[in-house]
Amino acid sequence: MKPFMNEEFLLSTETASKLFHEYAENCPIIDYHNHLSPQDIFKRRHYENLTQLWLEGDHYKWRCMRVCGIPEKYITGDAPEWEKFFRFAQIMPRLIGNPVYHWAHMELQRYFGINTPLNEETAQDIWDKTCNMLSSEGFDAVSLLAKMQVKILCTTDDPADDLQWHLKLKADSTIPFHTLPSFRPDRFLHIDQKVQWQTAIEQLASRYGAISDWQSMLSALSKSLDFFCEAGCRVTDHGFIHFRYANGDPLPVMQKALAGEALTENEIAIYQGALLRWLAGEYHRRELAMQMHLGPIRNNSPKLFASFGADAGGDSIGAATDPFLLSTFLSDMERSDQLPKTILYNLNPADSAMLATMAVNFAADGAKVQYGAAWWLLDNINGINKQLDQLMETGLLSGSVGMLTDSRAFTSFPRHEYFRRILCNKLGKLVENGEYPCDMKHLGKLVEDICWQNAVHFFNFNIQDRKY
Amino acid sequence: MKPFMNEEFLLSTETASKLFHEYAENCPIIDYHNHLSPQDIFKRRHYENLTQLWLEGDHYKWRCMRVCGIPEKYITGDAPEWEKFFRFAQIMPRLIGNPVYHWAHMELQRYFGINTPLNEETAQDIWDKTCNMLSSEGFDAVSLLAKMQVKILCTTDDPADDLQWHLKLKADSTIPFHTLPSFRPDRFLHIDQKVQWQTAIEQLASRYGAISDWQSMLSALSKSLDFFCEAGCRVTDHGFIHFRYANGDPLPVMQKALAGEALTENEIAIYQGALLRWLAGEYHRRELAMQMHLGPIRNNSPKLFASFGADAGGDSIGAATDPFLLSTFLSDMERSDQLPKTILYNLNPADSAMLATMAVNFAADGAKVQYGAAWWLLDNINGINKQLDQLMETGLLSGSVGMLTDSRAFTSFPRHEYFRRILCNKLGKLVENGEYPCDMKHLGKLVEDICWQNAVHFFNFNIQDRKY
Amino acid sequence: MKPFMNEEFLLSTETASKLFHEYAENCPIIDYHNHLSPQDIFKRRHYENLTQLWLEGDHYKWRCMRVCGIPEKYITGDAPEWEKFFRFAQIMPRLIGNPVYHWAHMELQRYFGINTPLNEETAQDIWDKTCNMLSSEGFDAVSLLAKMQVKILCTTDDPADDLQWHLKLKADSTIPFHTLPSFRPDRFLHIDQKVQWQTAIEQLASRYGAISDWQSMLSALSKSLDFFCEAGCRVTDHGFIHFRYANGDPLPVMQKALAGEALTENEIAIYQGALLRWLAGEYHRRELAMQMHLGPIRNNSPKLFASFGADAGGDSIGAATDPFLLSTFLSDMERSDQLPKTILYNLNPADSAMLATMAVNFAADGAKVQYGAAWWLLDNINGINKQLDQLMETGLLSGSVGMLTDSRAFTSFPRHEYFRRILCNKLGKLVENGEYPCDMKHLGKLVEDICWQNAVHFFNFNIQDRKY
Repeated sequence: MKPFMNEEFLLSTETASKLFHEYAENCPIIDYHNHLSPQDIFKRRHYENLTQLWLEGDHYKWRCMRVCGIPEKYITGDAPEWEKFFRFAQIMPRLIGNPVYHWAHMELQRYFGINTPLNEETAQDIWDKTCNMLSSEGFDAVSLLAKMQVKILCTTDDPADDLQWHLKLKADSTIPFHTLPSFRPDRFLHIDQKVQWQTAIEQLASRYGAISDWQSMLSALSKSLDFFCEAGCRVTDHGFIHFRYANGDPLPVMQKALAGEALTENEIAIYQGALLRWLAGEYHRRELAMQMHLGPIRNNSPKLFASFGADAGGDSIGAATDPFLLSTFLSDMERSDQLPKTILYNLNPADSAMLATMAVNFAADGAKVQYGAAWWLLDNINGINKQLDQLMETGLLSGSVGMLTDSRAFTSFPRHEYFRRILCNKLGKLVENGEYPCDMKHLGKLVEDICWQNAVHFFNFNIQDRKY
Repeated sequence: MKPFMNEEFLLSTETASKLFHEYAENCPIIDYHNHLSPQDIFKRRHYENLTQLWLEGDHYKWRCMRVCGIPEKYITGDAPEWEKFFRFAQIMPRLIGNPVYHWAHMELQRYFGINTPLNEETAQDIWDKTCNMLSSEGFDAVSLLAKMQVKILCTTDDPADDLQWHLKLKADSTIPFHTLPSFRPDRFLHIDQKVQWQTAIEQLASRYGAISDWQSMLSALSKSLDFFCEAGCRVTDHGFIHFRYANGDPLPVMQKALAGEALTENEIAIYQGALLRWLAGEYHRRELAMQMHLGPIRNNSPKLFASFGADAGGDSIGAATDPFLLSTFLSDMERSDQLPKTILYNLNPADSAMLATMAVNFAADGAKVQYGAAWWLLDNINGINKQLDQLMETGLLSGSVGMLTDSRAFTSFPRHEYFRRILCNKLGKLVENGEYPCDMKHLGKLVEDICWQNAVHFFNFNIQDRKY
Repeated sequence: MKPFMNEEFLLSTETASKLFHEYAENCPIIDYHNHLSPQDIFKRRHYENLTQLWLEGDHYKWRCMRVCGIPEKYITGDAPEWEKFFRFAQIMPRLIGNPVYHWAHMELQRYFGINTPLNEETAQDIWDKTCNMLSSEGFDAVSLLAKMQVKILCTTDDPADDLQWHLKLKADSTIPFHTLPSFRPDRFLHIDQKVQWQTAIEQLASRYGAISDWQSMLSALSKSLDFFCEAGCRVTDHGFIHFRYANGDPLPVMQKALAGEALTENEIAIYQGALLRWLAGEYHRRELAMQMHLGPIRNNSPKLFASFGADAGGDSIGAATDPFLLSTFLSDMERSDQLPKTILYNLNPADSAMLATMAVNFAADGAKVQYGAAWWLLDNINGINKQLDQLMETGLLSGSVGMLTDSRAFTSFPRHEYFRRILCNKLGKLVENGEYPCDMKHLGKLVEDICWQNAVHFFNFNIQDRKY
């Protein structure tokens, strides 16, 4: 029996262990997609306790608590911080096999040196120790990130954002990593969500000039893109519940929407298709990468939505993506020589084979389209293994840009380690089974490429001008 | 090499073995969904031979025989019972890897103490031995169930049923388990299957008063529900080939249907949506659990359907479920504070991740929605493992209500053991791999919860008033 | 650690090793679906080097090279043959886990006795050795096939084909295997692809008489089928991107299409449904097997399509198949007693469970419908394992007609060995885990049946009249 989550955690062979400890473990982290607050980084936010660090905004943990029957008072409500933590500690043993179980323990180990399993009995002791440590030096937001050897962070930002914290971060040379904004124009694409769309238009207009039609919207978005690029943006992001796409003239659709008229499904698809093509072309011109996150279904619970609004725990895995529509979009971009670097992520595992093989089709002039990392509800041992298998068997694992956290939490960076252990274990097994030569030169390079080098090259990150 | 199906069957580690033998093996069985005949139980039916026990009504075995090319005469036809059994014995070795292979051998072992593999050579000997034993005491329907420590049985019954056998069973205190009816109103929902729907309406009307419109149908169904509850009903069941759902007024649709007019797809969806909402509300009010079985496709073979009618072997895995429609239904119920305890089962594995994560969304006031056990064509080693993984990684395995047989056969209860072995093996592996602490207190409780305690609590079964 | 790809490659237990080496390894090959050139066989084509053998027409390898960023010049362009090979050798270590990696090394081992891993360093030596060997005797197309113990080859041919090379091959008794044509009428079904359809009609007409309407098309196709049967055809093949199917009168649809008018989706479905029913009936009458390949999406990349036309590397996994339409087709054929022997193949893994279980429904008079081998982008270790599991758990693995190459390359026949190793490993594990008795009589027969005997019987191949 292996000891609980020790240094050989998830590594089942000698080759796996060697690959992890000699190659993967010390690679820097390029976290090209997350939801961290640039303000918290710049202000080097301090946390008083694990409740602030873990339970303040982490909908993964909220879901676990709710499904264990914990009253909302102890999750997002006004219960004292200790009591919230204690309730979370109590349910820990019930989270067997859940990634939250492993993440929490990796975080206790890596940030606090605590190797005890968290549960009802150990809760008080762990609370006390971590409160003590958090009050000492080296536990502010910047230190937590630096400790994990983070080199690049790409946050997620609205086109109307003034990026004030990113600009301050850019100017602060004492921070040993780059915090770059990512351009996420979802609200502009979702013309079917009327109020949200109109608000987005107004906010963008107030910053980049009046928007009265299609052309003035593109003009404002273009200015915003220029501003994002000045602030260091290399990556954009798009989320799709339904991937709608059609060819057609978006101008009359835009006019109808501005006039507050209802749109047909086809008009929505025409508008989204046109805006997506225009944005992708702009990304291509600016050498920005385009992320496409496909397949969630959101705000399922009216009670959670009423209490917390969007992104608050009533979201889950939705429908499979239409391959014909997605292919038409990518083909249209390739045909006009404007296909940007693109990463396709699926939330529904039924899309996995389709997206992984679709990505490979568009390599006529360079491997531009990637099949992305296991995302959100697939970010767990089986999900990561499936994504790696899919890449190995039908794509190119060695060319993958690797992992990202997609997280709002400053201590979630051991998720990179989690991925790296699973990766090294998979490669190690191939070698031990005689399916690949025990050629550490090629294997080591492959591991380092996937852990960080491929991301640096794919996104063309500048990692030279900060000291570590 | 492990011996063939010995006491360590499917248990690959010491921890797995310990969890199974010390915790799971002796847990009582709560079989909250099956298709047993309450009449056979009350009459303590005797079986003369394995053909009566195994081949009389088991469409799993029929499928295996047909796909091996056995003529129908030896399956459902008029061949002598011994010859039917012999043909089944002959194909056994060809069923390698099929759950029917394991189930049959577990049944020989547990009920008859026979550990020999069944095949052409051993058929005569096994036939003779089992015939002898079946003619002795302790092999009637009640004894077979009692032997497996069954505490609760929920059969599947039509709303028009008079439940006479259930009432007799309730009154017979010599039977050491509870046999409860389950309310399955499928024929009332499937208004598109005209003849079947009209027959259902007539049968219900003849028992609970004339049905001339929507309101009188609900009134009759409500009386039926009350009667079921008096008879001990805790569970309801719904099967969906297409999950149709819409909001709208069902009254005119009902009038058209009663007048024999054809309905549009949208009218069917309006009727089904309204009836489903009404039923779910009634279940919630009565604290009944609602089972939703999603994704079969039925009666594919016109030849089998012509010979045997519904449920006779021409059924298989159908289409994936629309997550948007399902979410709308669940949301509508939550919004009106009428969401009943619900269990979602999928037949198409492509629905697995969607349903498991959808279930977790509706825990705003208690974990009401469960992702159900691997069902029917997924009830096999990989299917069960996948369901457990899905629950562990994206839901809450420790909260699962566990296994059920879904069976028509009185000797199919080792399927609970099959599930428990797979469960213990999975948990054991986590511990042996260092992914969970070797903490038998938590692990043992977790196993017992999943094996039976969670079901007792979720369905609120009364297990106190019968002696064992 | 196991040595790299030695004789125990993919065999992880003693039982697996025994099953492979004593039963599977020396079974003849029945390759009932491939895309070999009958002309190359008849002319006993010689190859000067591995570039001719490997890179001339293998879109699997092209995909790998493109996704590694190799310029098209070195893939399909005019670079010297050595340089193309060298580029391919360079990327080999990056193809970790890809079946192309294993296939290439198995081919080096089996045909050339080279056990060195191919990479940048070994490229020159391997090039030299293989060039030498290819220039010696025993490396022509016929010898390469004979070396692998091929008994039956079914190529893929258009109904308008004159089958001249097949007729010559039939007459040449020095060739130690049968090369049979397969009837693939895809162009006739795809009436929506106007130009291609009209060309197909014209070509067929020029050989079998004027086609002016539905009836004359069927008449010409019938003559072609007769001619194919005379040439030894036992198998037909159909590819579906969308599986369209409807009942209705195809005559007016055909007239519209001949007049060059545009068709509606429903008209296309009526035409395809009618032609499919007619073809299936003709197959049934002639005892031909019908292959249905479901689920690709083709020509996604406009650049690759412009350069290379169809089938050239811009193809991938498409949408899941509608089970209701497929069931309606199979039911219609069974109802009219004309259901042919049928094999269902899926490219989208989300179809796997649906197709495997659908196949079993149609065994009312003999097991006529098979779930086919892991195909194309699923033809890899996980894909094959999943297909075998699916068959074992929900179908009948022991009745499977086993593997095929689906290949254009004369050295791709170790793919049968790849499949056999995975098969034996799976069966071996069942035995070693105590899930099946260690009964080599039944196991050995089962392996031989799947490797070749089932295919001989299912397709009713005549393997008697050639010497080996």
